[in-house]
Amino acid sequence: MMLNSSATALEPSPVLIVGSVAFDSVETPLGREENVLGGAAVYASVSASFFAPVQIVGVVGTDFPKEHVEFLRARGIDTEGLQVAEGKTFRWSGYYDYDLNQAHTRQTDLNVFADFHPRLPESYRDARIVFLANIDPDLQLEVLEQVRDPRLVVCDTMNFWIERKPERLREVLRRVNLVFMNDAEARQFCGTFSLLRAARDLLAMGPDGVIIKKGEHGALLFTKGKHFSAPSYLLEQVADPTGAGDTFAGGFVGYLAYTGDLSEANLRKATVYGSVMASFNIQDFSLNRLRTLTQEEIAARYEEFKEIAFFEAISASGETA
Amino acid sequence: MMLNSSATALEPSPVLIVGSVAFDSVETPLGREENVLGGAAVYASVSASFFAPVQIVGVVGTDFPKEHVEFLRARGIDTEGLQVAEGKTFRWSGYYDYDLNQAHTRQTDLNVFADFHPRLPESYRDARIVFLANIDPDLQLEVLEQVRDPRLVVCDTMNFWIERKPERLREVLRRVNLVFMNDAEARQFCGTFSLLRAARDLLAMGPDGVIIKKGEHGALLFTKGKHFSAPSYLLEQVADPTGAGDTFAGGFVGYLAYTGDLSEANLRKATVYGSVMASFNIQDFSLNRLRTLTQEEIAARYEEFKEIAFFEAISASGETA
Repeated sequence: MMLNSSATALEPSPVLIVGSVAFDSVETPLGREENVLGGAAVYASVSASFFAPVQIVGVVGTDFPKEHVEFLRARGIDTEGLQVAEGKTFRWSGYYDYDLNQAHTRQTDLNVFADFHPRLPESYRDARIVFLANIDPDLQLEVLEQVRDPRLVVCDTMNFWIERKPERLREVLRRVNLVFMNDAEARQFCGTFSLLRAARDLLAMGPDGVIIKKGEHGALLFTKGKHFSAPSYLLEQVADPTGAGDTFAGGFVGYLAYTGDLSEANLRKATVYGSVMASFNIQDFSLNRLRTLTQEEIAARYEEFKEIAFFEAISASGETA
Repeated sequence: MMLNSSATALEPSPVLIVGSVAFDSVETPLGREENVLGGAAVYASVSASFFAPVQIVGVVGTDFPKEHVEFLRARGIDTEGLQVAEGKTFRWSGYYDYDLNQAHTRQTDLNVFADFHPRLPESYRDARIVFLANIDPDLQLEVLEQVRDPRLVVCDTMNFWIERKPERLREVLRRVNLVFMNDAEARQFCGTFSLLRAARDLLAMGPDGVIIKKGEHGALLFTKGKHFSAPSYLLEQVADPTGAGDTFAGGFVGYLAYTGDLSEANLRKATVYGSVMASFNIQDFSLNRLRTLTQEEIAARYEEFKEIAFFEAISASGETA
């Protein structure tokens, strides 16, 4: 799917985000939290909400407390698409060792998420920007059947779907503008160790852009014939890496929705804003750090990223524009 | 050891480089080479020679062919400090899997390197810039006893010395301006997973700057209260990563010698020039790529690094200067 080159400037639009809503139990070298708010759609939505209005689609059980819904609403997130199903909310339990790039799952209870089919409220179907968080590619395709005229569709995925539904994932890739993968997933899906080759392969499958997340090593943005390397933000301590990739994606799509600018130069800035949001999120468990985060802190850290990456001014002829 | 702040501009000076000279037998997924020219001092010297005159100190056996010495001389490297000892030249044999960050040693024959003690020719002892490549810290200290008034001393090391001679390595660190380590070495030496903490610990031991090499993930430069993240250069294929760190170091010190500018802003550029040189070196076995490398290619790749890392102009107030 090609970005319509005449439409790289978008009208302001809410971001539609579809994915999991969960209770997480997480143990890291810095502590342990039980049954805290999590899920890809939640991390991405809260992160995006710092930049633009958000419409969330997901499913929770009857055990999902009102306070979590109120938290989302207080952040300007439209929760009309949050389905409530008879049963328990999706639960994930896992731990991280000192190598915080690798989550180890202890237990997954899909609960109501097992029978989830995204149903978009009528008011969501005109969404211009859609983020399909990591869910079954068949469900991602169901979402695309329901949106009328999206201008920017972004998807994430994971090794589970790469192994079990590679053909359906390919179908998703034919229909999205941008795809997120982490480095291991990109290598696995494309069968090559070279991230440059993997990105070229992914671009050939349909998307106009590929964002490869490298955890503590930053992120790479690939577009046709170009790439950008965003630095990581070094922290003395990472409390909990859960949701880092989703927070990254939320900041990325939120910034694009806010600016309405889909140029390559602005995709680079979006990659950095995604990195900024992820760098905050991992400083505390669950979404705790995002609960107190301010626009001033986001702006200050973005400046830090500029400072960290700068080594020489690029000529004013705008070769990167 | 503090850089003399009034002396951040140096007179043009050759770079003195001390380290191993070797024959390497290397196997990688892309091929195999037997008994090819290698050694940290050779990689670093050839790399530095693209920027400044070099004086090399090392030892070879009587089996070391004239053509290698002639190659070094043709690159403007002073070989008066290349000692010839009765016996065979140091030999290293190893292989790399697809994870090219990790060398696996098959065999090490120290040969004449076992009894090596660096002896600086009189003409070397006024060197202003000294690079102590990865050798026994006791030998690194012997070099420092012989140079009269160095203005910039840079050292490298490896896990072998971190494990066996940590106290002597600390003594070296008290006496150098800049230290290179890779990420695993910095974590091991400082006993922390956080590279930020490791760098702070290393700075507290004496150096004014710490350069942490992260292989395919680029490099980090730490100075007091600041750090810089240099992107890596993505290649479709890496032929042979042997010598990447030494080539990096050679480009780094060579660029500093060429510019005579030891400001933090220029250390950032040196980090990128080091990355540029390493990115070329790994494209072929041994020093083959450096044999044909041109200044134009170096300049063009440096521009590519600028393009890869750029996302937003930094204000003209020069906050990074």
